[in-house]
Amino acid sequence: MTLTAEGREKLAAIFPPERLFFDLADRLSCSYDASFGDYLPEAVAQPQSAEEISRTLFLANEIRLPVCPRGAATSLSGGPLPVKGGLVLDLSQMRSRLEIDRENMLAIVSPGVITADIQREAAAAGLFYPPDPSSAHVSTIGGNLLENSGGPRGLKYGTTKEYVIGMEAVAPTGEIFRTGGRTVKNVTGYDLTRLLAGSEGTLAVVTEATLRLIPQPAARRTLLASFDRLHDSGRAITGILGAGILPAAMELMDNACIRAVEAYEACGLPAEAAAVVIIEVDGHPRAVEDEIHRCAELCREAGAGMARVAADDNERDAIWRARKMISPAITRMGPTKISEDATVPRSRIPEMMERLVAIREKYRLNLVVFGHAGDGNLHPNIITDKRNGEEMRRAEDAVGEIFQAALELGGTLSGEHGIGLMKAPYMEKELGTAGLAMMRKIKDAWDPHNILNPGKIFPEPGQTRIRLTG
Amino acid sequence: MTLTAEGREKLAAIFPPERLFFDLADRLSCSYDASFGDYLPEAVAQPQSAEEISRTLFLANEIRLPVCPRGAATSLSGGPLPVKGGLVLDLSQMRSRLEIDRENMLAIVSPGVITADIQREAAAAGLFYPPDPSSAHVSTIGGNLLENSGGPRGLKYGTTKEYVIGMEAVAPTGEIFRTGGRTVKNVTGYDLTRLLAGSEGTLAVVTEATLRLIPQPAARRTLLASFDRLHDSGRAITGILGAGILPAAMELMDNACIRAVEAYEACGLPAEAAAVVIIEVDGHPRAVEDEIHRCAELCREAGAGMARVAADDNERDAIWRARKMISPAITRMGPTKISEDATVPRSRIPEMMERLVAIREKYRLNLVVFGHAGDGNLHPNIITDKRNGEEMRRAEDAVGEIFQAALELGGTLSGEHGIGLMKAPYMEKELGTAGLAMMRKIKDAWDPHNILNPGKIFPEPGQTRIRLTG
Repeated sequence: MTLTAEGREKLAAIFPPERLFFDLADRLSCSYDASFGDYLPEAVAQPQSAEEISRTLFLANEIRLPVCPRGAATSLSGGPLPVKGGLVLDLSQMRSRLEIDRENMLAIVSPGVITADIQREAAAAGLFYPPDPSSAHVSTIGGNLLENSGGPRGLKYGTTKEYVIGMEAVAPTGEIFRTGGRTVKNVTGYDLTRLLAGSEGTLAVVTEATLRLIPQPAARRTLLASFDRLHDSGRAITGILGAGILPAAMELMDNACIRAVEAYEACGLPAEAAAVVIIEVDGHPRAVEDEIHRCAELCREAGAGMARVAADDNERDAIWRARKMISPAITRMGPTKISEDATVPRSRIPEMMERLVAIREKYRLNLVVFGHAGDGNLHPNIITDKRNGEEMRRAEDAVGEIFQAALELGGTLSGEHGIGLMKAPYMEKELGTAGLAMMRKIKDAWDPHNILNPGKIFPEPGQTRIRLTG
Repeated sequence: MTLTAEGREKLAAIFPPERLFFDLADRLSCSYDASFGDYLPEAVAQPQSAEEISRTLFLANEIRLPVCPRGAATSLSGGPLPVKGGLVLDLSQMRSRLEIDRENMLAIVSPGVITADIQREAAAAGLFYPPDPSSAHVSTIGGNLLENSGGPRGLKYGTTKEYVIGMEAVAPTGEIFRTGGRTVKNVTGYDLTRLLAGSEGTLAVVTEATLRLIPQPAARRTLLASFDRLHDSGRAITGILGAGILPAAMELMDNACIRAVEAYEACGLPAEAAAVVIIEVDGHPRAVEDEIHRCAELCREAGAGMARVAADDNERDAIWRARKMISPAITRMGPTKISEDATVPRSRIPEMMERLVAIREKYRLNLVVFGHAGDGNLHPNIITDKRNGEEMRRAEDAVGEIFQAALELGGTLSGEHGIGLMKAPYMEKELGTAGLAMMRKIKDAWDPHNILNPGKIFPEPGQTRIRLTG
């Protein structure tokens, strides 16, 4: 414990009592996220301004208090967990600004604004904010920025990072600074905006962001294709891209995933298929009309048993409903869901899928796979029970092998969930000693007392094994 | 001078004599770029591997030798100039690798590869590398990466930074490290790839890069529109984007620019127009056909006197020829061209153009303006003669006012040319003390002896005025 009575008093000089909490119940509500582990903070504050955060961080450096920024806590990698205790900065209430600048196609937002609200306000102005993590209806843009959230549209549209062009932020040592600006082109100095995007709350607290928007696509069409062989689905995806079509989404579900969804709610997916792929194209109506049927042809040419283009919005919604049912379907299969996001170059997806089958059998685990096939971003999900220590150890070994497989196939530990706690021991395997050291130099230079979100990203000395529980 | 006889010997232990130069003639050939100023290096080396660069930088830290990476030296901001003497690392000969991975839509390239060669090889595989600086036919991809080069397609397609997903690089202290990888989605640690992109050779020497490619658009159509009032051209641009059309390029030329081109070579531009705008849309043939005519309509609705859609490739080439003549036309107007790239939010372009007219009159300078109107990236060019000291001082004052105007209108010092030497004194005005300090902390942490490309980006103590000459 690092917070003394004097420290509490100093915090109380920054925050009014209705936005500063020391009670166990309040602290418990900030002790978890959507991953595992429980870490109780010593205090929780709800800042309303960059100045309050600045004063907090100056104080934190003085009294060596760990500070962990937190949005809606939908992180799957432990991003907001206060693993060293200290203060949780709950930014979910800092949400006063959501301004759409239609002429310049920008959104200026406070960190606590819900991502789906930005999407909705943009759409109301005829504009489009493409990043679409599945948590978009609850997650905050601040969390999306610091974790660089992705979603199905990564291949065509990129991730959160491709849309943030400016930030106001507070340094770990308390200084308020601005990065980037309001122009898409900007090469004035180092790109701190993109450095902060995906920094998992270890380099700064974001207090405002400027996002670029693009014109709303006028049309979208969707198809569902099923394959008896996994390799054929890979050939279909490559064939579509090779034909010069860049779909907005290409979502893959393996047989275990299909069965899980159908068991949860009958969505009309072919239960025997090795894989189904959902493909959506968007853009100009005439282009979309042509491209979706070309996609269906290419699926059939690659060996699809079925390739059905949704005739109208109802049919489109039905297809996407099957995709959206994955998460609740999996959740019903067991109390603990380990949601991974190992990512490989697109051409290696079939091989990665085979490796995942082998891992499932080796460790006798309930493993379902779905993911964003266009950008190689797979989501192997292990369904287990964290009270079952023996199975959790098998799950740990399996996750370690999943990471290893992704790296061996030229991929990365994390496509969109972040490193957080669990993957830190694997960082050096991917980045090498020198690559990791370059990152650590930035962290050390900006946060010499390791105040901001300590215990994340960087492995602790001697830590070489993944750790699913605290 | 920092290079002793002993230092020369140590360099000779790294590089064979045919790739290491101490002669005045060889050094002179690396003393300039496409900006101003002449700075003679003490030696020039042409590395062929990351290992040679690594050994060089270890040595440079030992003997405190400034090291300046150089590509094709087309920089307009002094990026490669060896302002502190020392060693120029000429990377233009390190060009062994230009590999297109068609299936994963990637290019893996050595730093000395010419950008246009990447564009050509990608196109041969049905793929597209969108960044297109006007120097693409001579500039190296290494220079493009470190300066984050842009070009006309920034609004729709982004800049170099949006296409690089992995690098091999050598740290200022000599360590070889890798950033990113071969997947579009990657959130494993800090985004060092994007930190290095646009770092102007101050943070690392890039020795290999992985670029993502996209499917080649199947069609493109182009139009030329002329306006009697500048404001109308701004309304046309906003109208097109507001209609949900995202053109690949929207190039603006002011009256002085039109006249300069027509005086150089008759391109059929209307000499009396306040502005002409070239608009190009690309994508699916049916979408393009519809959109280009809609763009022409929207131009007319906004008050265009003329809006002519190119009927075929010949007419398209003729329109782009006028755009490409700007640079030679300007060059003929005087021996020294000061090419700026102040960038403002798109909605402020008409106001910025008015400010530029006022600056032209106030300082009695030959100032022509063109630029990428879609992304607010203007290129005010002052044509002068650097032997005319009095006029150069007026030009310095004018450039200072251009920067000031861009910042007052919510813009940035540089959209795509970089800060380099000239704009360093203005960095703090844009970034604030804290913003600049955060950048400097990274530079200091990575390059404690200030070995790599010293004298760039960061202002020297007390330096507050721009400096066009050495």
